[in-house]
Amino acid sequence: MAIIDDARKGIITDEMKKISLIEKISPEKVRKRIVEGKIMLIRNEKYPSKKIVAIGKGLTTKVNINIGTSSEVVNLDMELEKVKIANKWGDTLMDLSTGGDLDLIRREIIKHSELPVGTVPVYQVFIESFKHKSGGAYFTEDDLLNTIEKHLKDGVAFMTIHAGLTKDLAIRALKSNRIIPIVSRGGDMIAGWMIHNNSENPYRKNWDYILEMFKQYDAVISLGDALRPGATGDAHDEFQIGELLETARLVKSALEKGVQVMVEGPGHVPLNEIAWDVKLMKKLTGGVPYYVLGPLPIDVGAPYDHIASAIGAAIASASGADLLCYLTPAEHLSLPTVEQVEEGAIAYRIAAHAGDIVKLGKKVRNWDDVVSYYRGKLEWEKMISSLIDPERAMKVYTQFGKPKVRACTMCGGYCPMMWAMEQVRKISD
Amino acid sequence: MAIIDDARKGIITDEMKKISLIEKISPEKVRKRIVEGKIMLIRNEKYPSKKIVAIGKGLTTKVNINIGTSSEVVNLDMELEKVKIANKWGDTLMDLSTGGDLDLIRREIIKHSELPVGTVPVYQVFIESFKHKSGGAYFTEDDLLNTIEKHLKDGVAFMTIHAGLTKDLAIRALKSNRIIPIVSRGGDMIAGWMIHNNSENPYRKNWDYILEMFKQYDAVISLGDALRPGATGDAHDEFQIGELLETARLVKSALEKGVQVMVEGPGHVPLNEIAWDVKLMKKLTGGVPYYVLGPLPIDVGAPYDHIASAIGAAIASASGADLLCYLTPAEHLSLPTVEQVEEGAIAYRIAAHAGDIVKLGKKVRNWDDVVSYYRGKLEWEKMISSLIDPERAMKVYTQFGKPKVRACTMCGGYCPMMWAMEQVRKISD
Repeated sequence: MAIIDDARKGIITDEMKKISLIEKISPEKVRKRIVEGKIMLIRNEKYPSKKIVAIGKGLTTKVNINIGTSSEVVNLDMELEKVKIANKWGDTLMDLSTGGDLDLIRREIIKHSELPVGTVPVYQVFIESFKHKSGGAYFTEDDLLNTIEKHLKDGVAFMTIHAGLTKDLAIRALKSNRIIPIVSRGGDMIAGWMIHNNSENPYRKNWDYILEMFKQYDAVISLGDALRPGATGDAHDEFQIGELLETARLVKSALEKGVQVMVEGPGHVPLNEIAWDVKLMKKLTGGVPYYVLGPLPIDVGAPYDHIASAIGAAIASASGADLLCYLTPAEHLSLPTVEQVEEGAIAYRIAAHAGDIVKLGKKVRNWDDVVSYYRGKLEWEKMISSLIDPERAMKVYTQFGKPKVRACTMCGGYCPMMWAMEQVRKISD
Repeated sequence: MAIIDDARKGIITDEMKKISLIEKISPEKVRKRIVEGKIMLIRNEKYPSKKIVAIGKGLTTKVNINIGTSSEVVNLDMELEKVKIANKWGDTLMDLSTGGDLDLIRREIIKHSELPVGTVPVYQVFIESFKHKSGGAYFTEDDLLNTIEKHLKDGVAFMTIHAGLTKDLAIRALKSNRIIPIVSRGGDMIAGWMIHNNSENPYRKNWDYILEMFKQYDAVISLGDALRPGATGDAHDEFQIGELLETARLVKSALEKGVQVMVEGPGHVPLNEIAWDVKLMKKLTGGVPYYVLGPLPIDVGAPYDHIASAIGAAIASASGADLLCYLTPAEHLSLPTVEQVEEGAIAYRIAAHAGDIVKLGKKVRNWDDVVSYYRGKLEWEKMISSLIDPERAMKVYTQFGKPKVRACTMCGGYCPMMWAMEQVRKISD
C-alpha cells in the first residue's frame, strides 16, 4: 500500500520505523509529516533499494548523484564504476543516459545500485522517436506513458516529470530576452514537442493517469523545472516563478491522490537569492521536499562548478532544501569521469553537512565536535579516521613524510595546541 | 605621506586614482572612505608592490594566499613556486614561514611577489627566542619591536598584530571548556608569553610606538584574532567576542593616528552565523575592512577544507567581508604543496566572485552574463576562454576527445540549447 495511505490511516509501518531510527526522529513525527507530504520515502514499493532513503522536514540533507551515457560517450563499465562511487557517497542516483541501449543500461544501473534510482523518462521517448521516427518530436503521448510504465516496472523509484511547463510558458520563455531561454534537457524536449505538435504538455494532459501509475508502484514524482534559470542573470524571472506556480498546483493534486511528490529547483541563482528561493518554494507548495540542482551562484566557474555550486547547495540546505543534486567538475563542459563523479559527490556531502549543522543543530554537529576534540588533543589518528574522507586525509597528512613531531608539517614544533596550554597549566598547578 | 593624511587633507593621490580606475568607483568615494578607514590601500609606502591592492567598501573582494616554510619542511624553491601561483590567482600574499633562514626567505618572497606581502612578526621573535634563548617565551618587548621594524624595512605591507588579546582573556580562554581553547599560532605565542612572563600583551604595552612605526612606512596593521573559534562548537563565545571588543577599541586609536587598520576574523563558524558575524564586526569597528579566514562552516572536511571554507568565504564576502584568507586542501593536515596552493586559490576566487555578484551587482555580473551568452549560443571557444580557468576548462571539454557535434559530450545531439529553440523559430517565421 502507498506509504501516504498507511500514514493517513495512522499506521506506523516498518519503513517509517527505519526512517525514525536512521534520522533520530520520532516515528510519529515521520508518520505525521508523510501525511502532510513534508517527508517522503524515495522508493519503488515493488523494488525497494538496499539503502532506505527518506527526505524532508527534520531529516538530514541528502545528495543525488547523476550518471549516465551520452550520445557521444557510451561506456557501461565506466557508468557502473560511477554507481560504486554513488553507493559510497550518495543517497540517490539518477540514470540520465542518452546513448547506447537505454533499457539495458538502466537495468544494469538499478541492479548495481544500493540507492533509489531516478530517471527522466522523456529522454528515452525522445531519443527513440529521433532514431526510429526521423525526429524527436514524433513520439506519441502513449509512447511517453508506456516508457514511464516500463521504468516503473524496472524498479525506478523517482522520475523527473516536467509537468509544470505549459505551452504558453514555454513559448514565452523561448521568445524572451533571457540570456539562455532553456537549459533543462528534458524540459527542452517537452517544450519542442508541444510547439511542434501544437499541443499542451503531454504530462499535463495525462496527469491523472500518471498519478495512477506512480501510485501503483508507490514511486515518487519529481516535478522538473524546465524553465530553471541557466544564468544568474535569468534567476527568479517570470518564467521560473510562473512554472513554480503551476508546479505547486500539481503538488496539491498529487498529494490528494496519495502520490509522493517533490519539486525540483534551480540552477543558476545569485547567492543572496538562494535562501528565499527555498522559502518561496516551501510556502507555495505547502512544504513538500525540495530537490535543487546546486544552486550555482556564478556562471564562470567551470571546471570547478562542483565547488561553486557547493556554496549554493550549502545555503539551500541550511534554508530547508532536502535533496541536493550534485554537480561535477565536468559540468558545462563534458560527461564526467569516474574521478570527477567522486569529486562532485564529496563536495556535496560537505555542502549537505554544512547545511545540516544549521537545520538539525547539535544532533548533527556531534560529528564536528568529536573531530575538533581529537584535533585539539593532537590525537592525529583518531582525528583523521573521523574525517569525511580518512583515506585521502591520511595521504595529505603524510605527503611530506610522517611528521617527526606531535604536530603536523604546517606548524611543526610551534603548534598552537601545545605551547600556551603548557604555560597555563604551570600557573594552574 | 600616509594615505589617510592625504585623504583627510582632501588630496586625491595617484594611488587613489588608480584604485578608482581598477575598481570602477569615483576617486572622491575612494578618498572619502579612506578618511573613514572603510577603504585601505594595502601597501608599504617605501616598497610599493607591483599590483595595486585596495580593499573595503564598494571594492571587489580580495583573496589572500598564505605560504611559507615550517620547522618540518623548508624548501625555498617550492615556496617561490607558490609565489608564482599567488601572483597569478591572489591579491595579497602572507609569508608564514617558521623554518629555515627566516630573513632570507622573507626577502626572497617579497622580491618575487607582485602582491603586497604580509607577515606575523611574532613567529620570528618566538622562534629566535626558542632557538637562541632556550625557550619561546624569553623574547623581550624590544625583540618584538625590532622585528616589526625589520619587516617594515624589508618592505612588508601588512602584519598580523595580536593586540586585541588581553592576558585576562587569554587565561580565561585557556582554562575554559572550549573544545579547542586556542588555534591561532601567533595568538598562542603571545598568550604563552604573557602567562610565562606574568605580563600584559607586549603589543598592547607598546601600542603607540607600534602605530608610529607603521605610520612611518604607511603600512597596514591587521589586528589578529588570537581567540578565533577553531571548532564550530566554539563560535561566537565570550572569548571571540571579548577579543573583538578589544580589537574594535584599538581600531579607533589606529585611525585617530592615521594608521590604516583592518581586523581579522574567524575561523570555524556555523553557516547561519557567518552573515551576522560580518555585520557585528562592521558595526563594532565602524566599518574598517574585515579579513576572514574562511570561515569554515564544518570541522570534518579535511582534506577538502578549501571547498568547505569556500562556502563560508562566499557568504562572508556577500555579507561585507573584504579580504578572504584562503585555505588549501592541506589545511589541518600538512603544509600545502604547490598544487594545493593553486586549488585553494581558485576555490577562493570563486567564493570572492560569488560574494561580489551580491555586493557589487551588474558591474561584476557582466562577466557571468558574457559567459552565459556564449554558453547559450554554443560558442564553445569563446565561452571557455572567458571562464575562470580556460586552460583547465579546455582539458575537461576534450577529455573524451573533441565532441563531434556542436554540443558537448554530456548532451551530445540532444543539447537543450538547440532543439526547442529550432521549433519556436519555425512558428515565429
